Amino acid sequence: MRNLCMTVSYDGTAYNGFQIQPIGKTVQGEIERAMAMLTGEDVKIHGSGRTDAGVHARGQVFHVHTNASIPVSKWPVALNSRLPQDIVVLTAIEVPLLFHSRRSAKRKTYRYSIRTGKYPDVFRRNYEFHHYNPLRVHAMRDAMSALVGEHDFTTFTSIHSTKRSHVRTIYKAWLEEEGDVLHFYFTGNGFLYNMVRIIMGTLMRIGEGKMEAARMAAILAARDRSLAGPKAMAHGLTLWSVEYEELDFEREARQ
Amino acid sequence: MRNLCMTVSYDGTAYNGFQIQPIGKTVQGEIERAMAMLTGEDVKIHGSGRTDAGVHARGQVFHVHTNASIPVSKWPVALNSRLPQDIVVLTAIEVPLLFHSRRSAKRKTYRYSIRTGKYPDVFRRNYEFHHYNPLRVHAMRDAMSALVGEHDFTTFTSIHSTKRSHVRTIYKAWLEEEGDVLHFYFTGNGFLYNMVRIIMGTLMRIGEGKMEAARMAAILAARDRSLAGPKAMAHGLTLWSVEYEELDFEREARQ
Repeated sequence: MRNLCMTVSYDGTAYNGFQIQPIGKTVQGEIERAMAMLTGEDVKIHGSGRTDAGVHARGQVFHVHTNASIPVSKWPVALNSRLPQDIVVLTAIEVPLLFHSRRSAKRKTYRYSIRTGKYPDVFRRNYEFHHYNPLRVHAMRDAMSALVGEHDFTTFTSIHSTKRSHVRTIYKAWLEEEGDVLHFYFTGNGFLYNMVRIIMGTLMRIGEGKMEAARMAAILAARDRSLAGPKAMAHGLTLWSVEYEELDFEREARQ
Repeated sequence: MRNLCMTVSYDGTAYNGFQIQPIGKTVQGEIERAMAMLTGEDVKIHGSGRTDAGVHARGQVFHVHTNASIPVSKWPVALNSRLPQDIVVLTAIEVPLLFHSRRSAKRKTYRYSIRTGKYPDVFRRNYEFHHYNPLRVHAMRDAMSALVGEHDFTTFTSIHSTKRSHVRTIYKAWLEEEGDVLHFYFTGNGFLYNMVRIIMGTLMRIGEGKMEAARMAAILAARDRSLAGPKAMAHGLTLWSVEYEELDFEREARQ
């Protein structure tokens, strides 16, 4: 029995999220099907976390226990040839049996992308939220800084959250401009259900001038979902990377 | 009666090319349907040229005669709200009645994109041809230079071409590298059926070391399709821009 850890990128447009659901195609379902085709084993993969329907991943991570003897370096190409084109496995490494893609994760980074301007970019339409009117970038950047640190993020999670604790730490939150596109990055030790999307819906209100940037700290402290903005559309969101101690996927990818 | 000239971008993945065909969805068909919804007129649009099934456009140009009194500045947004998301009209201007998007065109630019490396980029998979093995960039660049100038391009057109003359002028041919992606640009006064795709199939042979770069001039001079490489896949190709005298779409787009 071996434990394999893989990174996978996917275009979430056609999927009902990462995790297997009673209804709809899922990324997990497609990967498990490809693994069964490859190995004959009926295995279950374990993701670092769920992504919602329509959310993408540049570097989702999963682990899987397998008895297959295929050399670890062969796994990505072997799986990709059995996967649909909107799912691409990028790296595979063997890890200790106790490694768990979710429990061992130290930091995750999400990116949310917004294109402002009259027209969407037809080639990025499924990966950028299109916002016709300009946004106040400085105000959004100011408001983001209020989120950094350890906080109870109840304000920014679904009222259906079943987590016992809503305390999470955001280590970094930053905004990059690329022409008419704004990329919002959030790195934290974990994210609650819908957290990035509700933060983004709130930041958009601030960017539209409907809320003051200085309000961000107050609504965070209030722990009241009704004070935040609406949940932003899924398609602007990408799970950018998941980090672990002693694992460097970028280095692996270069080898 | 007015003559309107518009630029349109589209993701060609889902279409049987630009021009209306007996079978399959086409970009022209979608635009004419949107215009009928908007104006009630049963109009025919005239593109600057066809693009094959799966080929994209950043800046295709068409003209259309209309009696509708909608101000020209309102057309792009009005059409986009009636078009599928993979077609986006970017500019509209009024032009003299004699303007013809194909006959008045002075220069066209196509781009062909190839990603080399082990894995495709899942977010660019429909816009980049994926080539697993590295390519000899210098040799490809050398071979491209042999195409510049006025030549009979019979070697690089479909044997089904019905054009009387295969003489065309390539003003510029250049290669840009963006990480693992190679972008090949060709600007000319016109392009024959499949011409860029057959040129690219030939350049890939050269890039793979299966043909010498110096052969390019000789096979061009031979006017023999059988000496060229295969037709490259459609999805790497994008109609980048169409240029006219006294029309500046980029300037229009900024207004």
